[in-house]
Amino acid sequence: MRTFVIVGHKATTSAEFSLEDIPGTSGRLDILCRCINSGLVLSHGIRHDVAVYLVLLGGEIPKTVWLRGEDLRHLNPDERTTAALIKKALALQVGPHWTRSTPGIMVRTGGLSSLLGELEPPFYMLREDGQDARAADLASGVFVLGDHMGLDALEEDLLLGLGANIIGLGSRSLHADHCIILINHELDRIEVRDNRELDS
Amino acid sequence: MRTFVIVGHKATTSAEFSLEDIPGTSGRLDILCRCINSGLVLSHGIRHDVAVYLVLLGGEIPKTVWLRGEDLRHLNPDERTTAALIKKALALQVGPHWTRSTPGIMVRTGGLSSLLGELEPPFYMLREDGQDARAADLASGVFVLGDHMGLDALEEDLLLGLGANIIGLGSRSLHADHCIILINHELDRIEVRDNRELDS
Repeated sequence: MRTFVIVGHKATTSAEFSLEDIPGTSGRLDILCRCINSGLVLSHGIRHDVAVYLVLLGGEIPKTVWLRGEDLRHLNPDERTTAALIKKALALQVGPHWTRSTPGIMVRTGGLSSLLGELEPPFYMLREDGQDARAADLASGVFVLGDHMGLDALEEDLLLGLGANIIGLGSRSLHADHCIILINHELDRIEVRDNRELDS
Repeated sequence: MRTFVIVGHKATTSAEFSLEDIPGTSGRLDILCRCINSGLVLSHGIRHDVAVYLVLLGGEIPKTVWLRGEDLRHLNPDERTTAALIKKALALQVGPHWTRSTPGIMVRTGGLSSLLGELEPPFYMLREDGQDARAADLASGVFVLGDHMGLDALEEDLLLGLGANIIGLGSRSLHADHCIILINHELDRIEVRDNRELDS
């Protein structure tokens, strides 16, 4: 299972934001919506082997939204429809256990630390000085990215404590959603190569 | 100059679409807005060496919108703001000469054939059976992509007549905006390599 975790430091945990101004009213949930598209959307369908977690830290209590490719429905590639799905999930009254919103979308209270404790290594974090992803021979693991503010020092320490690999994606400073496209593509290539080796 | 040309077969040439439902009212201008983001937006700025052309075929007379990275202003990464900029450009009364809308955005009547006649080779078109882009040693040229309908046979013939290279991007069928991310990244890597060779 490929897993992308995106930390939204200002992202709202409430459904009280406007679909007419997502960047200005939701703590940049627009960034996270684009990450959902990058992680899950193919030209003719959904990546069933991908899970995306949004860690939303812009409320009193953190919340996490989980999108599971294998049973996800109603996901269109545009930002507004995606934001509407997240809005629906955030309108639910939830506690620390996963509550189902729409097919393939679950939500609960809790932040990065409890989430990472439940996921299987290998862990990867992205940093511009990391090892080139193309040389790193990535495995299908957990890729943790920050929003427009990146990851903070505590989040990096948490990941390093879990043995996270630090990877980089070339010379340009890219948005998280663009990084996810590149990681998915790299993993697609590795899968094709591994399947060829199995066949030969 | 890196140039991306995206053909929107149903994309409206009129400003009479709703920012509250871009996919449903504009002939999928949402796809082209995401291509603008992929082509031009970096984490901390705009790619000054990129131009994006949208060829809009969903009206009585085709129109082309030109976004020029070197003098582009007011471009945010979110879909709605981008669509609002395009809406502004489409509200102008234009003829076959470029008319400036906002800084870095020009619009005129005319379609793919007249546009390609004015651009410098090399030309590239994307097709799933094309040569792997990573092996193709891409140059900074003109990359032509279709919207959700791909390129039609006449468009492909036009490009082949101009000597276009047919390139592919791996095993998965990807949206045009995702392809543009991958091409930009490949060209970034080639630039770094070429600069290193110049230095050594």
